[in-house]
Amino acid sequence: MRIILVGYGTVGKGVTSILARRCTEKVKDYGFNPKIVAIADIDGAVVNPRGLSPEKLEALKQTRPISSDPEFGHPGMSALDVIESVEAEVVVEVTPVNIKNAEPALSHITKAFKTGKHVVTTNKGPLALAMPALTELAEFNNVFLRFSGTVGGGTPMLEFAKRCLAGDHIRSIQGILNGTTNYILTEMAQNHVTFQEALSNAQKLGYAEREPSMDIDGFDTACKVVILANWIMNKKITLKDVDRTGIREVSLQELGEASKKNNTLKLVGSIDGDTAAVKPIEVPVTNPLCVSGVLNAVTFFTEYAGEQTLIGAGAGGIETASAVLRDLLDIRHKLATKLLS
Amino acid sequence: MRIILVGYGTVGKGVTSILARRCTEKVKDYGFNPKIVAIADIDGAVVNPRGLSPEKLEALKQTRPISSDPEFGHPGMSALDVIESVEAEVVVEVTPVNIKNAEPALSHITKAFKTGKHVVTTNKGPLALAMPALTELAEFNNVFLRFSGTVGGGTPMLEFAKRCLAGDHIRSIQGILNGTTNYILTEMAQNHVTFQEALSNAQKLGYAEREPSMDIDGFDTACKVVILANWIMNKKITLKDVDRTGIREVSLQELGEASKKNNTLKLVGSIDGDTAAVKPIEVPVTNPLCVSGVLNAVTFFTEYAGEQTLIGAGAGGIETASAVLRDLLDIRHKLATKLLS
Repeated sequence: MRIILVGYGTVGKGVTSILARRCTEKVKDYGFNPKIVAIADIDGAVVNPRGLSPEKLEALKQTRPISSDPEFGHPGMSALDVIESVEAEVVVEVTPVNIKNAEPALSHITKAFKTGKHVVTTNKGPLALAMPALTELAEFNNVFLRFSGTVGGGTPMLEFAKRCLAGDHIRSIQGILNGTTNYILTEMAQNHVTFQEALSNAQKLGYAEREPSMDIDGFDTACKVVILANWIMNKKITLKDVDRTGIREVSLQELGEASKKNNTLKLVGSIDGDTAAVKPIEVPVTNPLCVSGVLNAVTFFTEYAGEQTLIGAGAGGIETASAVLRDLLDIRHKLATKLLS
Repeated sequence: MRIILVGYGTVGKGVTSILARRCTEKVKDYGFNPKIVAIADIDGAVVNPRGLSPEKLEALKQTRPISSDPEFGHPGMSALDVIESVEAEVVVEVTPVNIKNAEPALSHITKAFKTGKHVVTTNKGPLALAMPALTELAEFNNVFLRFSGTVGGGTPMLEFAKRCLAGDHIRSIQGILNGTTNYILTEMAQNHVTFQEALSNAQKLGYAEREPSMDIDGFDTACKVVILANWIMNKKITLKDVDRTGIREVSLQELGEASKKNNTLKLVGSIDGDTAAVKPIEVPVTNPLCVSGVLNAVTFFTEYAGEQTLIGAGAGGIETASAVLRDLLDIRHKLATKLLS
């Protein structure tokens, strides 16, 4: 399997590390032989049609920009050029999120589809803004689109619902899907600090961005709700269909009132019938969904198997990179089955 | 897919209900066309090689014994005879658990294997006592053995670890795998009642058996540890290899001490390296594993994706029957892939 990696931040580097370290074992387990044939970032690209060696991948981590590599560097070569001109089966898209127009990821993904390449992405932007269209375009071009790292980081929330709950009906979903806001609400509830203080702490600890709106105004959670709704519940919705309220207005007084009822306030993303929403709601502290700190949790309400809750770290470079590996293995498996049919 | 159902208690009846209600939808989803061609219980059997109709399956729920059915009843016909003589692809084994010698389930399963039938079971006994041998026998006879209802009831703990964590390494496992003991410990911790009082309450509510040793002495949890260890971590162990302590000796004083540290005592089954154990240990109340009441929870400690916890109802007839449906779909899928290869 030849792979073009687009984006070379924490997740991108994690992907090269995991693939370099794990490919030997995975050959044994799954007949899976991944080769990174190109890496593109904003400055240019490195390209080796025979696959970049583990040693080269390691060396590139110290090379800035990577396109300055004397052997395989192509300064100024754009990701779109790489996707168009380099032969590969899969494009791994891990550029930064942009929920205004989803670029440059959206162009990367559509270019990959049009040149017959499968796509694995950890980028919520294109999915949040255009998931129904992207799913159709992938089908039309007979390629796969996988994105397990977009929801739950390393925690396989999407796969769990899709694969493990086969044979059941998922009626509704509730999730705490953003670690930053959960950290802030946990701090406020447990240590009685104001929203502003908790946000400052989160920023100092690196949990929140300098420009925190994506998290605290609920956009990040809403993107994940869109992905869950499309993938698990076959709803054709995008970001604008999510009724969204963030946590800026949550007060210590509200948290205190909730606490008296043995509840607490959590930023919950939910899908129930035709309603997709993000808002702070009261959750009993004994509810499995009620996780603290930067954890993520999702509860699936099923017809036969009752409520099922999955909890894990929702973010992190290596965790998200492990989701990319899962997606690559899934595509490998799907292709093997397809070739046989 | 022709199915012989062995055992006709709560789970067995749940299986007939789910299959009758769901087969139409599932035909659409998966090309899955299940037919129950025989049901055997302790008194005899009903057999219809063309498949028992949904109406007949419904009527049988009011027929005692089922073998008295005028159309298809065979009073006194043993399950072994049915497995031997009726043509079918799968035997669903849902007789009561016996951890002394695993009978009659063990004979049912081996007979099924020797006559070339796949097996889906919710019975922990044969797996706890002979899982390595049964796995080998299934492989030798080129048939599948599936048992997702044995751990977590309707909560797909086994599938989650096997499928969703592909591409990662599971280093160790901890689980609260028995609802009865968890109910008792929760009652003791929250309402400060003694072990004996909590046990009586559990018996009154139907959570505990009149003879509660299977649960409170940790045998049930130990059976589940054996299954997790074999299936997920490739350990060739049986019940005798599990270091087991139950909850009879847990005192209110111990719970009080734990509470001061914001911990509580839980009966935890664990697999770590070569050690498989069941014992009451202190768990922080903020740990996702620390579920209350009759819930079950399991935490997988993975190399890349961190700690992943899955929580759900651990028991119940319809929940466990939904696990049987999952297993049947899995076998159907495996066969489809195999036929193509």
